[in-house]
Parts: sequence; C-alpha cells; structure tokens
Amino acid sequence: MPELRYNVLTREWVIIATERAKRPDQFAKSEADRRKLPAFNPKCPFCPGNEKMTPPETYVIPDGKGWQVRVTPNKFSALAYEGERRRAIVGIRRTVTGVGIHEVIVETPDHSKTTALLQDREVELIIQAYLNRFKFASSDSRIEQVTIFKNHGEAAGTSLEHPHSQMIATPVITTQLRDRLFNALEHFDEFGECIFCRVLDQERKEGVRIVLETPHFVSFIPFACLSPFSILVMPRRHMACFAEMNDAETADLARNLRRTLAKLYHGLGDPDYNYVVRTAPTEYCGVKYYHWYVSIIPRLTKMAGFELGSGMFINVSLPEENASFLRGIQVQ
Amino acid sequence: MPELRYNVLTREWVIIATERAKRPDQFAKSEADRRKLPAFNPKCPFCPGNEKMTPPETYVIPDGKGWQVRVTPNKFSALAYEGERRRAIVGIRRTVTGVGIHEVIVETPDHSKTTALLQDREVELIIQAYLNRFKFASSDSRIEQVTIFKNHGEAAGTSLEHPHSQMIATPVITTQLRDRLFNALEHFDEFGECIFCRVLDQERKEGVRIVLETPHFVSFIPFACLSPFSILVMPRRHMACFAEMNDAETADLARNLRRTLAKLYHGLGDPDYNYVVRTAPTEYCGVKYYHWYVSIIPRLTKMAGFELGSGMFINVSLPEENASFLRGIQVQ
Repeated sequence: MPELRYNVLTREWVIIATERAKRPDQFAKSEADRRKLPAFNPKCPFCPGNEKMTPPETYVIPDGKGWQVRVTPNKFSALAYEGERRRAIVGIRRTVTGVGIHEVIVETPDHSKTTALLQDREVELIIQAYLNRFKFASSDSRIEQVTIFKNHGEAAGTSLEHPHSQMIATPVITTQLRDRLFNALEHFDEFGECIFCRVLDQERKEGVRIVLETPHFVSFIPFACLSPFSILVMPRRHMACFAEMNDAETADLARNLRRTLAKLYHGLGDPDYNYVVRTAPTEYCGVKYYHWYVSIIPRLTKMAGFELGSGMFINVSLPEENASFLRGIQVQ
Repeated sequence: MPELRYNVLTREWVIIATERAKRPDQFAKSEADRRKLPAFNPKCPFCPGNEKMTPPETYVIPDGKGWQVRVTPNKFSALAYEGERRRAIVGIRRTVTGVGIHEVIVETPDHSKTTALLQDREVELIIQAYLNRFKFASSDSRIEQVTIFKNHGEAAGTSLEHPHSQMIATPVITTQLRDRLFNALEHFDEFGECIFCRVLDQERKEGVRIVLETPHFVSFIPFACLSPFSILVMPRRHMACFAEMNDAETADLARNLRRTLAKLYHGLGDPDYNYVVRTAPTEYCGVKYYHWYVSIIPRLTKMAGFELGSGMFINVSLPEENASFLRGIQVQ
C-alpha cells in the first residue's frame, strides 16, 4: 500500500507511490540524450574573451591568466538595481517597486564543465563567490531576502548552457520563507530543539537515506522527499544563516556538494537539476531554531495539476532505494 | 521599473518583469508544433471499444449509442481504494496509510477533441461528472480533501493524449489549503468580507484584466498573476464549496470555461495547460469566508531554481496586456 509522509520542515505531504515506484536506474538519461558541449563556444557570453557581452563584473576570482569565477549583473535582470524601495497599499493592493539585485555567477571559464566534473578547489571558489555576493546583497538596506540558485539543463529552466548560477535579492521576504521560519520557531518553543538538527540526527541514526557524509556536511534524501532523488546537503553544526559558515566548512561544502552532484551525474547520466541555498536572512544569524542547507532538486518528473492544485506531491520512487543506489556510485 | 505584486488570496509575491515582458502573441505555439490527433486511436485505453483496457467504470453518462463521459479508477492509482486510514506518529515522523480515491474522467469518446472544441452541453456533462465524483468522494469518511484537475499536453504532465481529467481524494488536508482557508478567515474577521468576493468585485470594477463574463461566472487574469496567462474562473455568487453549485451555474461554468479555454486555444495555438478546481472541503459548505474557483495554468514557462527556492515568481508578461489580447479573440 502507498504511504503518505509528512515533511516536518516544510509541512508538505507526499504520497510515496510504492506500487508505481520506478527503480533508481530507470531515471537515468539514455546515452543519446546526454549533453555534449565544447570547452569553448565563440557565441557564448560567459566564455573567456566574450566578457564585453555581459555587463561589467561586480566580483571576480582571478587565476594566473584570467578569471576562474566571474560575477556580473544579469543582462536581463528581473529587478532594477537602481531605485528606491517603495511600498504602495491601496485597498487590497500591495505593491513594491521592483528594486533588487540579480547577478549571474559564471562558475568556470570552461563551457563544458559542470559542477560534478570540477575539482573540489574550483567548487570552493564558487561558494566563496556566493558568500561574497550574499553578504554584499544582505548589507543593502532595501533587501529582505537573498536566494542563490542554479538551473542546470533545459528541464531546470536554463537557457544558457555555460555553467553558471544566479543570485536574486528581493525587497520583500516571501511567505514561504516566513512560514518555514515560524514553523521552526514553534517546534523550538515546544520541544526545545532545532527541528533541522533533529531531522539530521534521525537520518544519521537510521542511515538508510544518507548519500554522503563529509567532516562538516551530510547529504541525504529526506524521509518525506517530494520528488525522485531530491537531496538536502546540511551542515552538521547548527547555523541559521549561510553567511555563518567558516573556511573549513566552506571547503567541505564544496567537497560534499561536488561529490553528491557527481553521484547524480554518473548514476543518472547528468540529469537536469536545480539547487538552491535555503537560508534565513542575515538578521537571523545566531538564532537557535533555524538551520540553513542546500536543496538539490533533479528535474526527473513534471509538476502536474495535482501538485499545483493541492500542494501535495506524488513521488514515484523510494527515497531509501534511491539513496542506497547513490551510495553505491563511486566518485573521486 | 519592474513591479512586485502581492497575491492576497495565496500570500505569494510575483515580480512583474516589465522590462523583459513578452508580447501576448509571443507565447503562441508555432503551427508545426500544434497537436494533430486522430478522432480514434485503436491503442488508446480511453477510446470507445477499448473499455476493457481500464478498470470497470464507477460512473457513466450515456448517449444514444454508448457513453459521452466515463469515469473509472485510475489503472495506476497513486492511492489504494481499499484499506483503513491509519495515522502513525513516531518521534518526528507522521505517516498515514495511502488510502484514497484516484479516478480518471474520460471527457469525450472523441480522441481528438479538447475542451475548447466541444459543445457547451458536452462540457456541462463533464462538470456534472465532477460534481458526482466530488460528492461521492467527500462522503467517504476517510477523505479530507478532493482535488479535481486536468493535465493537457506534455508540459502539463500528461502521458495520455485522449481528453481526460482526474480526481484524487486524499486522507489528509494539505497545508496549502489549510493556510488559504485560514488566510481567508483572518481577512473575514478583520474586514467583514469574503476576500474572494472583494477581489472579484475589484477586478470587475477595473475591467482591464477580465477575460470573459457570463451570467454566473467571471474569468480573469489576476492582478498578481504568477505566470503568463494564468486565469481564474470564479462564480459570482458566494460559495465556499464546489458542491454548492446549482444547475444553472453548472451550465454557465461549462459555457465560461469552454469559451475561456477556446480563447487560449485560438489565441495561443492550443497551449499545454493544467486546470484545477480549488475548493473548500464539503464540511465547509456555507462558510462566509472562502470561495471556490477554477484555476487555469497554461504551461508556457518553466519553474526554475528561484521559484522553487523562494516561493516567489517572475512573470515575464503583463496581466493587463494578456487579458486584453484574450478579450479580442472571438469565439463561438
């Protein structure tokens, strides 16, 4: 019989459709469908030599001959950097001027290299860039929330194939984040513990959904995983905010994230995926009840009317089976 | 400058990306990409003559020679119909046995006819079938929430092209619905009005986002529309629950829904879409603060990392421009 599981972090129900479940390897891309990219594409705005095709950079990590990581404003920014944040409240209308920061983090000069194929040290530089831009955006008094995310592949909503991620800093906090903060606060008040620390502890005790443990991070497929192979990469140390991470943790996040993505890459044939840094805003640094993490969402199935209409999900795979499959994929 | 708009019904923010906005006709499918289906497909389990390829029907609306609408259990049901609802609470774990009802509503015998191409009377029969199954499922004491939805086209998550919709009745109520009920209740307590009636009233006064008015229903693109061409079809009369609709309203919903979908069909070249009946459970019949409606969501853009990670949306089109475009599409 199928089982409904409740995600205590997000308050979402998922139907684990045991009878319809696919085996882990049935989610793999066929060899013919895999991406084959050149190391350099003369028309790509993110390839070295084409820097003038993007707005001037806001941050750069140089290497010997050029740059290793390069951050620029998004040429097709969803928000305007210049301008005042003004809120208008007229009757039931609430609007805010669309000011904010929308940047692109170009992750490597090599057009063909996805995160799974980089060196740990190269991924560490990407995360250092994230930290720099996160702190920069958070220090802007117009900004309430900073979202760092990556769209890898067409099913994940990207139009440019050169490896890159994005940051969107918005002049409002979303109800989704506010609800999750409040949910975690209620748990803390009632049980005297961080709900995320508790989940991590339970996952480590059971072990069956763990993907990879490194000194400072644990990646696992959560018990109430909403879609096949969704993975959380969670710091062992309690931290509410991404910006609280120290140097050793930054290096270890690179190691864990890169290897976890490499397991997906080799196990499922380079699937399309999103990842996102789910964090409290910096003003929450130090609070005892919230805990940041990275959420990896492979785009192996489509959201249909039921998911959109109810907020409940159907997962046609078994989290335990998928985690065991990924543990078995050997990566460097 | 872009504008952030707040959806007072769902508490979601959307960035109306004015500078990146596409014109309405830029969302149209090219002639080459349009569906071309035969009226009969011998391999289709929903085509007449193939009834034995599905489980026995639970409801049928006959016509002279056979059936016009046919409901059967989903052959690949996400939930088990037989069984007891049992909840297990162990530590932070909450699970419920996966019992419920998952049915398919085959909308017409004709493989090639989508809702936009049916007669009003044929669509009315589909809605009568929805009402029958909604009431049937709601009377099952194991059921807390009933979701009726349609997935039209591959981008909307369907695998079968024969026109059909689905009903999933679940043994729990989702946080999404509970939050929306509560949000509406709070508005009622503070302002003494149904927030949905207020929104409808405001949309009708302004007129610029109206798509189609019929005697009992109004279809419109909401002010804080999350994605291009998303449309609400809302009853003028205050009703919390779908099952409260009378016969005249049922006929008029068919008329409004069919013509609204026909405007999308002719204006955008038969786009893929989902629709979903958003309603309170039957136990809420008669409450003053909630109001059911149908939500149509054309799948013209993809949810990417930002949307998944923040719960905020970027709409690359102008609701006012799109509504004006649809008003201009003449349909029978």
